[in-house]
Amino acid sequence: MLATFRVRAARSPAAYRAFSTSVRRADRAIVYAKNGEPPSVLRAVSYPPLEAPKPGTINVKYILSPINPADINVIEGVYPAKPSPDASLQSRMDGPVFVGGNEGLAQVTAVGSDVKGLSEGDWIVPIAPQSGTWITSRNLALSDVVRVPRAEGLIEAGAAMLTVNPPTAYNLLHDFVDLKPGDWVLQNGANSAVGQLVVQIAKAQGWRTINFVRDRKDFGKLVDEMKGLGADAVFTYDDLADKGLRDTVKELTGGKPISLALNCVSGPVTSNMARYLSAKPPTKPHLVSYGAMSKQPLSLPTSLFIFKDLVSCGFWQSRWYKTHSKEEKEELISKVANMGLKVPKHEIIEVGGEGASDEEVSQQIQDVVRRVVEGNVGGKVLLKVA
Amino acid sequence: MLATFRVRAARSPAAYRAFSTSVRRADRAIVYAKNGEPPSVLRAVSYPPLEAPKPGTINVKYILSPINPADINVIEGVYPAKPSPDASLQSRMDGPVFVGGNEGLAQVTAVGSDVKGLSEGDWIVPIAPQSGTWITSRNLALSDVVRVPRAEGLIEAGAAMLTVNPPTAYNLLHDFVDLKPGDWVLQNGANSAVGQLVVQIAKAQGWRTINFVRDRKDFGKLVDEMKGLGADAVFTYDDLADKGLRDTVKELTGGKPISLALNCVSGPVTSNMARYLSAKPPTKPHLVSYGAMSKQPLSLPTSLFIFKDLVSCGFWQSRWYKTHSKEEKEELISKVANMGLKVPKHEIIEVGGEGASDEEVSQQIQDVVRRVVEGNVGGKVLLKVA
Repeated sequence: MLATFRVRAARSPAAYRAFSTSVRRADRAIVYAKNGEPPSVLRAVSYPPLEAPKPGTINVKYILSPINPADINVIEGVYPAKPSPDASLQSRMDGPVFVGGNEGLAQVTAVGSDVKGLSEGDWIVPIAPQSGTWITSRNLALSDVVRVPRAEGLIEAGAAMLTVNPPTAYNLLHDFVDLKPGDWVLQNGANSAVGQLVVQIAKAQGWRTINFVRDRKDFGKLVDEMKGLGADAVFTYDDLADKGLRDTVKELTGGKPISLALNCVSGPVTSNMARYLSAKPPTKPHLVSYGAMSKQPLSLPTSLFIFKDLVSCGFWQSRWYKTHSKEEKEELISKVANMGLKVPKHEIIEVGGEGASDEEVSQQIQDVVRRVVEGNVGGKVLLKVA
Repeated sequence: MLATFRVRAARSPAAYRAFSTSVRRADRAIVYAKNGEPPSVLRAVSYPPLEAPKPGTINVKYILSPINPADINVIEGVYPAKPSPDASLQSRMDGPVFVGGNEGLAQVTAVGSDVKGLSEGDWIVPIAPQSGTWITSRNLALSDVVRVPRAEGLIEAGAAMLTVNPPTAYNLLHDFVDLKPGDWVLQNGANSAVGQLVVQIAKAQGWRTINFVRDRKDFGKLVDEMKGLGADAVFTYDDLADKGLRDTVKELTGGKPISLALNCVSGPVTSNMARYLSAKPPTKPHLVSYGAMSKQPLSLPTSLFIFKDLVSCGFWQSRWYKTHSKEEKEELISKVANMGLKVPKHEIIEVGGEGASDEEVSQQIQDVVRRVVEGNVGGKVLLKVA
């Protein structure tokens, strides 16, 4: 849970050192040449130190880069966003090569001429999609990064996860329905990383949340944790399937229309949730999907669209970045960085390090990604390519 | 088909005359006191001639009033829009009574003081929902009617169907996506009354339509008729389920994105159609539902919402009337009245008439509605309550 975050020590690289065939100090990138199962296709490659940055560009050193589920799908080749081959590494490999990772926190190590608003030591996050963040260092165009304010209480781990989940939660709550203080929002998958951020951001804005989660043995504990984050009510999907919940919700809301529901599950759970939506014209009730954890389609009665004016739509933070100006991006990142959001449970894992060979580091990253794919990790994995 | 409209002679009231118990001349209303199967609950009641209209009101005589599928649902009590009891008739009955019908063409017979813009002999259509149009005559508030221009080629039958279907088709094409000349639109149930109007209005605006219909023995004939109305392409739902259609559509459109699809069917047919939608930001591809003839839900892959920015929404002409000004309503009715739209196949049926008793007319309307419910009619039934 978010309420208490923890940092586990990285697995010691010593375990890999036995396989070492050569010892050298180098910057490294975690790359793949073709799509496939990440533990099979990922490898580490060394590259020489960066040259001094050209005008309008900066050199950065990555501090922490999350391994998100979407990153795995990109490597598998099943995600709609495709990275471009890395031009600087290509010359060192046989054919095109792609660097893994979409999000990460980096520190500016050098600035080119004509660079304004950024200095050595500043924190940045990349905003160009699929820029390849599982890497030690990089030269980046100023247009592809946003400065991260050193907000009070914002730790490296929180800053590293700033590009995707907090903006998603923020935009889900702001971009579709004009919520007024005291308004209610529904969401399923409410204990997901985004779901927990939705609860916190809604609470901060004076909006109230009704949260739906899978039933589980420690449901009572989860309710306490969600309420600790600011949730007003937490129910199971079984509760949601029961028509008796209508009276409970009506009592809770005083019969006020609920015009926004957030979906990352789809399937029957979401059909049931959509029936709770309504709004007074000109507001239209919105069901906004940003995931489909059930892997089932979204099935809704047509009558909801015709007679209740339901709008079912989607949100994808990558598209938001593509369709907004750099100023808007900076404003959004700065906003969520300053909200004091609790950092989700995570595990920092360092790969590489002084003296390790590319073969050893390849083995390390393959092991790490296998653990991620198998769900054998203690929260979100934050990679440090040393 | 619309291409050639025909008017069948009304069933002779003589057939009913044998049951006549009394002979009198009266205005009549087709009413029901409680929801139920229309052939069981409908009856005819006579009422005295209207008084002179009060200020701001008009007296009208109905010329033709359609029996729409929604009217049947309203009487059954399964439609979301509920009529109000008819105050003027209530005093003549035991308890509240409702007059059937939502749409119809009427002629002004008298105008009260303070009535501007309407004179005796003008055509009007009611725009207040569920105003009760299966009636001989009525006193109406000026705010509840819109004048129908005597457009060239606009016959009574066409004017009687002006409130629901043509505005629906017009709004479906105009209210959701900003179509440019040469843009493509998809629709299923394309040979429905609204579907045929969509084809004609799209054609008139320079937009192109790809139309989907059920397979049938005389499919070739239907294609010819649809093309006669202006359809660019007509396919069956079986074609749509076949991935091979993608190349055909791509050839047809030259790969141009299709950003609007209209749905009155739902079910898998519509899931298949939605996959053909795409758009360049800031346009969002829209799937707009106005019916669900398959009686199946609308089931869509969540990925279409997230990655293709699909918006699934609904349209209901009744809501449009509720949320727009009288000027906007007049403008819309005038627009579609002047478009030279072909009048759908229909059958004019007269009930009542000089000398018939309420019992006889009740029997007549019950027979008519039974035929409508059983689908045993030659097109849309237009009622004349003589």
